[in-house]
Amino acid sequence: MITSVSNQQIRHLLQLQKKARARKEEGVFIVEGIKMYQEAPREWIVKTYVSESFLKKTEYQHVLGQPNAEILSDEVFRKVSDTQTPQGILCVVRMPENSLESMLTQEAPLFLLAENIQDPGNLGTIVRTGEGAGVSGVIMSRDTVDIFNPKTIRSTMGSIYRVPFLYAEDFQDVIRRIQSRGISVYAAHLKGTASYDDKDYTGGTAFLIGNEGNGLTEETAALATDYIRIPMNGEVESLNAAVASALLLYEAARQRRKRDNA
Amino acid sequence: MITSVSNQQIRHLLQLQKKARARKEEGVFIVEGIKMYQEAPREWIVKTYVSESFLKKTEYQHVLGQPNAEILSDEVFRKVSDTQTPQGILCVVRMPENSLESMLTQEAPLFLLAENIQDPGNLGTIVRTGEGAGVSGVIMSRDTVDIFNPKTIRSTMGSIYRVPFLYAEDFQDVIRRIQSRGISVYAAHLKGTASYDDKDYTGGTAFLIGNEGNGLTEETAALATDYIRIPMNGEVESLNAAVASALLLYEAARQRRKRDNA
Repeated sequence: MITSVSNQQIRHLLQLQKKARARKEEGVFIVEGIKMYQEAPREWIVKTYVSESFLKKTEYQHVLGQPNAEILSDEVFRKVSDTQTPQGILCVVRMPENSLESMLTQEAPLFLLAENIQDPGNLGTIVRTGEGAGVSGVIMSRDTVDIFNPKTIRSTMGSIYRVPFLYAEDFQDVIRRIQSRGISVYAAHLKGTASYDDKDYTGGTAFLIGNEGNGLTEETAALATDYIRIPMNGEVESLNAAVASALLLYEAARQRRKRDNA
Repeated sequence: MITSVSNQQIRHLLQLQKKARARKEEGVFIVEGIKMYQEAPREWIVKTYVSESFLKKTEYQHVLGQPNAEILSDEVFRKVSDTQTPQGILCVVRMPENSLESMLTQEAPLFLLAENIQDPGNLGTIVRTGEGAGVSGVIMSRDTVDIFNPKTIRSTMGSIYRVPFLYAEDFQDVIRRIQSRGISVYAAHLKGTASYDDKDYTGGTAFLIGNEGNGLTEETAALATDYIRIPMNGEVESLNAAVASALLLYEAARQRRKRDNA
């Protein structure tokens, strides 16, 4: 059992929790809690850490049967946990690798293209909602917040394991490559006159979502195949990025359901 | 100019920022930033505080013309601000008072009924999205997080000034009173077999949204006029509370738009 925060492994975990660079260099990230442990693909798990009192619950004894399971004193666990009330289990898991080509194999794919989303909770919620809506992939510009941020991971509620995603080295190039495969790229934008529910998303579809404060860059917006708008009552100027993503993705899901049931 | 954090007004502001009870006792709350200052109904503003450097920007000199404007040193302002990078202006504003009856005067109203939402950002986003979708009011159970929490206020992006809301002393009684006026109350619930987009929301409509972790209480769910479900792909068990609210409210808005354009 590890009882000291100056232990090498503990210092390493703290680095992985706090620093995107440390995660990236090593190609791993940290997931916390029972649900995130249970849903993790077994082959992704590099190492599992449990707290002393977590292990005392008999229902979790089997966790120690995992390769590379390690026990931490409750105090040390609290130190490495990113949550206020730690559940007592966290795993170091390897980052998945997805290619644009593998995402494009699906027929009539549905993409969410996120440019410079900065709020970790928004990004995680986009991934979670994306899985619910049946998204083929979430593609992010390089300046988007780190998807392996503990708060993002938590907000995905496990969807991080199941939704293909990638950071585009060149976001605008990815948009062009997607369009060259016959996929329509829609931007919710002031230029849009058609309401978002007046377009047909049953074919290959991608939605552009921009930064919380500034929206899409002009360069990116200019590449869109078509512009749409989400009607807003009152004095609302924009919607939360995760909410806008949800409305667009679920409108596509709704249309596809109607077609399949017709 | 106030230059000490031990000043009585400063101690008072800190109480209002941190304590729901202090806000409630006095019937006021704090809004921060230029947008929140500009959009505040003038008659709601009790007092305005600006930082020394904010005032140096000549475009904001007129703020001092407001009754009860006070200057704080930048250091003191940073202390009373709830944000990481304060814009240099905050106001103490009085809480609005809304009655259920006033919300019910609208024809075919659209309500969001929130039970025990705990995340301040979710609640603020619900209010913001609600304004966008044209909601008649947001009604919250007593155990819902404080809507006057600084993080909630920020997340509303000003919609707090425009969307009628109230805390129900007796949430279930309010549901019954709403139903007695011919308004259908829908619960997104496991009992639901109809997809949320297969019901007609052009008449008086209210949507129940439950706690982030536990959903609706059984007692509340049992009161629903009808149950619906939001279809979810993959292994998603539920959606974020603000996302679910957005999908339901915007589906109602979509149907009402279609009817009006028909």
